[in-house]
Amino acid sequence: MFSEKMKPRFSDTDALGHISNTAIPIWFEGARDEIFKLFLPDLDLSKWPLILAKTEIEFHRQLYFQQEVEIKTYICKLGNASFQVYQEVWQQAKKCVSGTATMVNFCYQTQKSQAIDDDIRAKLSEHIYIPS
Amino acid sequence: MFSEKMKPRFSDTDALGHISNTAIPIWFEGARDEIFKLFLPDLDLSKWPLILAKTEIEFHRQLYFQQEVEIKTYICKLGNASFQVYQEVWQQAKKCVSGTATMVNFCYQTQKSQAIDDDIRAKLSEHIYIPS
Amino acid sequence: MFSEKMKPRFSDTDALGHISNTAIPIWFEGARDEIFKLFLPDLDLSKWPLILAKTEIEFHRQLYFQQEVEIKTYICKLGNASFQVYQEVWQQAKKCVSGTATMVNFCYQTQKSQAIDDDIRAKLSEHIYIPS
Amino acid sequence: MFSEKMKPRFSDTDALGHISNTAIPIWFEGARDEIFKLFLPDLDLSKWPLILAKTEIEFHRQLYFQQEVEIKTYICKLGNASFQVYQEVWQQAKKCVSGTATMVNFCYQTQKSQAIDDDIRAKLSEHIYIPS
Repeated sequence: MFSEKMKPRFSDTDALGHISNTAIPIWFEGARDEIFKLFLPDLDLSKWPLILAKTEIEFHRQLYFQQEVEIKTYICKLGNASFQVYQEVWQQAKKCVSGTATMVNFCYQTQKSQAIDDDIRAKLSEHIYIPS
Repeated sequence: MFSEKMKPRFSDTDALGHISNTAIPIWFEGARDEIFKLFLPDLDLSKWPLILAKTEIEFHRQLYFQQEVEIKTYICKLGNASFQVYQEVWQQAKKCVSGTATMVNFCYQTQKSQAIDDDIRAKLSEHIYIPS
Repeated sequence: MFSEKMKPRFSDTDALGHISNTAIPIWFEGARDEIFKLFLPDLDLSKWPLILAKTEIEFHRQLYFQQEVEIKTYICKLGNASFQVYQEVWQQAKKCVSGTATMVNFCYQTQKSQAIDDDIRAKLSEHIYIPS
Repeated sequence: MFSEKMKPRFSDTDALGHISNTAIPIWFEGARDEIFKLFLPDLDLSKWPLILAKTEIEFHRQLYFQQEVEIKTYICKLGNASFQVYQEVWQQAKKCVSGTATMVNFCYQTQKSQAIDDDIRAKLSEHIYIPS
């Protein structure tokens, strides 16, 4: 599991006084950095090897500006060329949002998917967690 | 069906040279305005009657900065207190992204869901479309 | 003068119930597209010839979600390698925000500024306006 | 001086491969939280006492996604009802962006500015710094 603690920003709020749902994909992508580094330790943008295929996000409770949040990041599925990242946002000891992102190991030059290397697969598998 | 045509903004791109996945929930929420107006014609924020429960987004093709996009918005499911909005982003005559948003008719004062009024239900049902 | 009419999005609001100040640089950059096209008609990102050096933004009145806005874009200063764009946001017939962006004709390969071509200079000068 | 260290997010980049200029007002507003708390320790949104009147931002060097940034926040001018916040973004030991935000002590109910209380003024004055 990867954990990132951060404070929401004022600009993450919307006119309903809570955190905008549109902030969550931004937070989740930010917290996937640790996954990106398993594929590309120097995060060299010219060699970026991943593309997002699908996201699912469930909003369980409203999030607010005033308190810190923790984003928990796991691998919940590991295929040949693709894998699923499971993430949660916690605030005040409550799970407020959860979601999965399906990512594909992708070559932007050839525009094709490619099998995940065994050494990366081994590292990803250390973070496996199946949400109940 | 509701249709909104718009041009992507430079700030919608990311370092991969395409439109960031994080722009899509922003575009989709913007295009749901027409749904919001069925519930609240004057869009009075102090009476906002909807909350987002879940989103699912599939990325079929990359979107680019240079060409206009069209966002198509439908109702794909209509329950007692909740409904699902189905949306697509088209660019250069190709469907690039599709997604659903599950919305709940919600009272922010009582923090409870409430049944959708019959007249609103009738208007929503005019935009029903079941994606295949 | 270039004019762009657009509707604010729900995600442009913040918890104060008005449009977030952080939305304005995004709107302004979006409306500078017409300037970008004078330099680069096909908006080819691999040949991008401009970089932002400075921005100044004044917030005269609050902007709200419910009404359309118009963004007016002018050239207010034209130097050898740089120029200034002056922009305003209008809503409900009132000027709500104004600002300038200082842009430099820039080569990302050499990381150096370069003189603006005479034909582009001629086109830019058609949009000159000096705010009082 | 207030200091905030943070990592840029992938979504902060744009198609030029660097951090988008539109991210800076978001980072700067986020880092002004410590100033906001001097006025309103619990950050209660219903009592928000500040409005932004003007921003000026200078982009000295490009910022990149891969390295942590530090945002430094100072008070550079202290008036009767208004004050100026001076901020810098540092990356790799270099000052990349600097800017000022003019803020007004503002009552959203009456829509009028109001003098800054002496105790808050005293706290603000502990963070005075005049950029050369």
